[in-house]
Amino acid sequence: MKLATYKDGSRDGQLVVVSRDLSTAHYATGIAHRLQQVLDDWNFFAPQLQDLSSALNSGKARHAFPFDPAMCMAPLPRAFQRVEGQAWLHHAALLGDTPDAGVPDDLRAAPTMHQGGSDDLLGPCDPVVLPDETTGIDFGAGIAVITGDVAMGATPEQALDGIRLVMLSNGIVLREPARAGQARGSDHVQSRPATAFSPVAVTPDELGEAWAGGRAHLTVQCHWNSKRFGLCDAGADMHFHFGQLMAHLCRTRRVRAGTIVNAGPVGNAPVTGDDGRRSWPKGCACIAEKRAIETLLDGQPSTGFMRFGDTVRIESRGRDGHSVFGAIDQLIRSDRPEPPAPEPVAEDEALQQA
Amino acid sequence: MKLATYKDGSRDGQLVVVSRDLSTAHYATGIAHRLQQVLDDWNFFAPQLQDLSSALNSGKARHAFPFDPAMCMAPLPRAFQRVEGQAWLHHAALLGDTPDAGVPDDLRAAPTMHQGGSDDLLGPCDPVVLPDETTGIDFGAGIAVITGDVAMGATPEQALDGIRLVMLSNGIVLREPARAGQARGSDHVQSRPATAFSPVAVTPDELGEAWAGGRAHLTVQCHWNSKRFGLCDAGADMHFHFGQLMAHLCRTRRVRAGTIVNAGPVGNAPVTGDDGRRSWPKGCACIAEKRAIETLLDGQPSTGFMRFGDTVRIESRGRDGHSVFGAIDQLIRSDRPEPPAPEPVAEDEALQQA
Repeated sequence: MKLATYKDGSRDGQLVVVSRDLSTAHYATGIAHRLQQVLDDWNFFAPQLQDLSSALNSGKARHAFPFDPAMCMAPLPRAFQRVEGQAWLHHAALLGDTPDAGVPDDLRAAPTMHQGGSDDLLGPCDPVVLPDETTGIDFGAGIAVITGDVAMGATPEQALDGIRLVMLSNGIVLREPARAGQARGSDHVQSRPATAFSPVAVTPDELGEAWAGGRAHLTVQCHWNSKRFGLCDAGADMHFHFGQLMAHLCRTRRVRAGTIVNAGPVGNAPVTGDDGRRSWPKGCACIAEKRAIETLLDGQPSTGFMRFGDTVRIESRGRDGHSVFGAIDQLIRSDRPEPPAPEPVAEDEALQQA
Repeated sequence: MKLATYKDGSRDGQLVVVSRDLSTAHYATGIAHRLQQVLDDWNFFAPQLQDLSSALNSGKARHAFPFDPAMCMAPLPRAFQRVEGQAWLHHAALLGDTPDAGVPDDLRAAPTMHQGGSDDLLGPCDPVVLPDETTGIDFGAGIAVITGDVAMGATPEQALDGIRLVMLSNGIVLREPARAGQARGSDHVQSRPATAFSPVAVTPDELGEAWAGGRAHLTVQCHWNSKRFGLCDAGADMHFHFGQLMAHLCRTRRVRAGTIVNAGPVGNAPVTGDDGRRSWPKGCACIAEKRAIETLLDGQPSTGFMRFGDTVRIESRGRDGHSVFGAIDQLIRSDRPEPPAPEPVAEDEALQQA
């Protein structure tokens, strides 16, 4: 089934069930109001939501309405935990100390992970509001899962059973504060503003064969200002699958229902041509990686970062051509009100001034 | 007023109002069930809880009952955000690269902060359940606040207005995974198991003159296995006050109601004697600091870390001698069930074997 949370003026929104093709939706009010409620007691609520989903998909839900992604908050608008794990090591290597050397062994040995903010998660069409456009504003397309309770010491396989829902995410990173924070012992709080999520979160079974081995074998499309930036493969090059990321997280503590595990940005391995020159034909899921590639190939980056007024769109389509999660489509803008437009000068005044 | 959350088998517990002297309590059921509800709409709920608090303190609350800290979950049993900030720089310096050099300038310039887990916060008497006792188990006594909504870019003074409640905290750190995580770019997820909080959270006005300049001017008492370990002053040496920590956090994003800002461990400046030798007469609020001091004075640490079966008690008393927040009193124990006691050998069998 596919679930979304509709804006209703509250902090947690209203849970809706969405049809497989994202055309229609139905309030889950009769079952549960909020997604966290469902996650807290999944075995009780999920079958009821599944019934509603089946009715909706077969056109038999009585109060269905057209689904509008712009009405969506993040599927889980605030979460009790969110972590970000490095799963695509080609990306991590390109942004590391030795981008030329491929993926170092220590990255392969165990995932790198850090806690992220989860008090304020953005809906797919919410603007990214920032104080400054000169801080190296970068998007980051990734896959995220929402978990149920997972026991301390769970194996990767056990942890996989705890995955309830899968989503797309856009993890905005401010690269300047990130660099400064890295120098101060990885203080990420100023480099990671609110993360956004796709309109719907889907149960793994909705992905069919694309969900295999704890990975979503899907292409993640990224567009920056409507221009294609990446058609990245989220499956093949994901070194640590979600079960491994979760096992890393719950090594010394239990994980509670409603935890979001973000993996990203997606990053693919380079292709080496007959001339021995590497290329990245699938593009990138974040700007920093593209700049790292440019630096590697040309000695310096030629792509700048995002500015106010820019947009980023992240989406994934199944084999049937349908959008799986709906699209993240965000505008980057200032936290200051727009300056008032200059007052039009009356024609006679203009004449007098001339 | 003083608020606590009673265990009731649910994930969020039941909100209770506690008398100033911690002797009695009263369910807040008629007003709100959960603390997060109150934080979401503080101006609506706080006056009603204040009325109940006044009635309780004057002995007029009709259904008051004896308050039992062992019944408490964390005041906020799960939170949408938790951050840990370095506020006591003498502590940070002792654990840094140059413990002999005092507090370096870069630590004074801006707080160091990282996101922490908040899906599973422990009550004051909950055991600390861990998979391994050889990982350098350390306690960490600190002060924490729970905030309301704070705007992006808020000044330290504006941020102070967002503080709703003050608590004591015990931030368990596993020093071995912490060292390994540091080497891997400060991956804290395996070194920071669940954090515990005092039985009650109090509004800043309950601290009277002890709440000044965004700091709690209180002595934090730490006992390890019932032996005094520290009587640390949480006020004087707190370099960054809570408003400054919060302003650091909300520099590039807004902060939403129910965010916990942990500061700690408390650490005090050394005293230099007539012989020029430094000493730390107030003791320590964590073991790692004591070991750093021992290393500095004697060339090597003589204090070990905690083992299964150890206890830690953290409390703070006001000038009237009363416990302000109640005591955190935790047992460290294994996540594995106790091995069964060896079966007693029957006397005749023992004789036969002999």
